[in-house]
Amino acid sequence: MNNTKIIILRAFKDKPGGYISGEKLSKKLKVSRSAIWKNIEGLRLGGYRIDACQNRGYRLTGEPDLLDIELLKSKGINYQETVDSTNLAARQLAENGAGNFTVIAADEQLSGRGRHGRNWHSPKDKGLWFTIILRPQAAAPAKISSITLVTAAVVADYLNTINLSLTVKWPNDLLARGKKAGGILTEFKGEPDRTEYLLIGIGLNVHHHADDFPDELKALATSLSLESNTDIKRTELLLAILDKLQQAYELYFAAGFAPFLQLWKKYNVTLGRRVKVELPQGSIEGKAIELNGNGALVLQDESGVIHTISYGEIV
Amino acid sequence: MNNTKIIILRAFKDKPGGYISGEKLSKKLKVSRSAIWKNIEGLRLGGYRIDACQNRGYRLTGEPDLLDIELLKSKGINYQETVDSTNLAARQLAENGAGNFTVIAADEQLSGRGRHGRNWHSPKDKGLWFTIILRPQAAAPAKISSITLVTAAVVADYLNTINLSLTVKWPNDLLARGKKAGGILTEFKGEPDRTEYLLIGIGLNVHHHADDFPDELKALATSLSLESNTDIKRTELLLAILDKLQQAYELYFAAGFAPFLQLWKKYNVTLGRRVKVELPQGSIEGKAIELNGNGALVLQDESGVIHTISYGEIV
Repeated sequence: MNNTKIIILRAFKDKPGGYISGEKLSKKLKVSRSAIWKNIEGLRLGGYRIDACQNRGYRLTGEPDLLDIELLKSKGINYQETVDSTNLAARQLAENGAGNFTVIAADEQLSGRGRHGRNWHSPKDKGLWFTIILRPQAAAPAKISSITLVTAAVVADYLNTINLSLTVKWPNDLLARGKKAGGILTEFKGEPDRTEYLLIGIGLNVHHHADDFPDELKALATSLSLESNTDIKRTELLLAILDKLQQAYELYFAAGFAPFLQLWKKYNVTLGRRVKVELPQGSIEGKAIELNGNGALVLQDESGVIHTISYGEIV
Repeated sequence: MNNTKIIILRAFKDKPGGYISGEKLSKKLKVSRSAIWKNIEGLRLGGYRIDACQNRGYRLTGEPDLLDIELLKSKGINYQETVDSTNLAARQLAENGAGNFTVIAADEQLSGRGRHGRNWHSPKDKGLWFTIILRPQAAAPAKISSITLVTAAVVADYLNTINLSLTVKWPNDLLARGKKAGGILTEFKGEPDRTEYLLIGIGLNVHHHADDFPDELKALATSLSLESNTDIKRTELLLAILDKLQQAYELYFAAGFAPFLQLWKKYNVTLGRRVKVELPQGSIEGKAIELNGNGALVLQDESGVIHTISYGEIV
C-alpha cells in the first residue's frame, strides 16, 4: 500500500464515521484532487468500503478483513502476500531446514492446489491459505495418512464452536451444507522408513461471496461467511486453528489416530453412504460401513466383500 | 579442460605410444615450455598417465576413465560434472516436470548422501553417482519400498556377469567381500495415495584405490576395481545398468516384487543371520528367517515372536 493510501486511511481513522473533504485530503497530502480520487478507488479495490458524498467528501464505512501481519510474525508465522501455493513455499522452507510446526500463510495463492495436482481457487484476502510443516520423530510415511483426517476433524470441531456447522468428508474435505468450504492437502517427502517432512496444506474459503467463485464452482463451493452470521476475522481464526492443531498433532504423534476416531465420526458425512472411491489401481464402489482405528475406510461392495482403503478419493 | 590441454591430448593421440618433445608442443601451441609443463601436470592430476623422458619428451601411457559426456547426452542422460548430490539435482528436475526414467549422473558429489541424511563419499571420477526419476502411474508410496531391493538385486546380478562378485544386504547395500561397494537411496514425494515421483539414487565405488577412502571407511568400503581384474569403463557400466533397471522397473510396476524375490535371495547375505534392525520406534533383534513376497524382512526374536519389517536399517 502506498503512502498516500496509508495517510488517507489514517485520516479516516482519526475521524471515525465522519466525512473528510477531497479538498482537505488534497491539501494535507499536497497532491491533486484526482490523485486523491484514484487512491480512494484503489482502497475500494482493496476491500475498503468508502462512501463519496457531494459537498461532504469521503467516509470510511467498512474495512477489509486483512491478515494482521505483525501479529502473525510475532507468533513466528511466515507470511507472504502472494505465493504460488503455500505447500510449494513450505517445501522450500522445509528444504532449507525449517523446523517442526513451521507455518506459512498467504493472502493469495496464484496456483493453489488441491489433491492430485488439481487447482484450488484461492483469491486474495478471501480465505485462509496456509501450510504447516511437520517433522515427526518416528513415523514411516505409510503410517501417517490419517493425519489428514485428524486435521479435518479438529478444524471442523473448532468451527462448530463459533456458530458454524461444518462436516468432514473422507479423507480431506470440509463441507458446509454439502458444499466444499475447505480442504486439506497432505504431502510428504521421505525414505521408505522415514518421513523427512510432512506438509499439511489447509485452504478455507472465508469471505467469498457467491460471485467470487468461478462459474463451475458456484454450485459446489461455499465460504464460512456465506454460512454464518458471525463476523469472522481471518487472523483470529488462523491463530485459533493453529493452536488446536498443534495440540492435536502432539497427541497424534504420541498416540496415533485412535483418540480422534470419535471426533472424526461426529462430524463425518461419509459413513453409512454408498460411495465410489478412486484408487491408483482403479475404483471401488460400495457402502462405507466403518472407519477403522487407523483412519482407513471400510467399504462393503455389492457382493458383500469388505474392502479396507487407507486413503483415496471419493468421487 | 582448457584448449592447451585439449591440443596436447590430440597431439598424443595422433602419435599413439610415441614421444612428443616439449619444444614441438611449445611451438605448436605458441606458449612457453614451462606452460606446457604446467598443463602436463594438470592432465596428470586429471588422471592421465604421462611419461616424461629427457631428450625425447612426453608420452601418454594411460587415460582416466572419464564419463563419455557426449554419449550420455545422446542417450538423454543429464550430466553435471559436480553436484551437491544427484538426488538433490534430480529433485529439482522432477519439480520442473522431468518425466519418467529421467536420469542424472555426475562425476562428483560434494555432499553425496546415504540413508537418513548421512554422508556418502563421492570423489571426482572415481565412481558412478546417478539418480533415476520414476513416476509410477499407480502406486501409493507405502507399496513401493521394495523397489530398493529390486534395484540392488538387478545391479548385483549385472555386476556378477562381468566378473565381479557382489552381494546385497537388506535393504539397500551392495557389498563385495563384506565391504560396502555401493548403496541405494530411495526417496519419494507424494500424497498418501499417490507417488508424485520416486528418486532412486545409486552410488557405486568404481575406481577407488584403498587410499581414496577416508580413514574411517578404509576397513568398511571397497570399489569394483579393487575387487576385479577387469578394466571397468564407467560409461559402459552406467549404460548397461540403466538398461537392466529400465526393464526391471517396467516389470516391477506391472507385477510387483514377486518376480524379483528369487533374484534377490540369490545374492543376499542377510537371510539366516542374526540381525538388529533399527526402526523409527526402536530396534528389533532376531534371526532373519525369510523375505516375504513384498520385500519385507521376517525376523524371529529370542522369544520366538515373528516380526515383519517392511523397511529399516540393519546395524
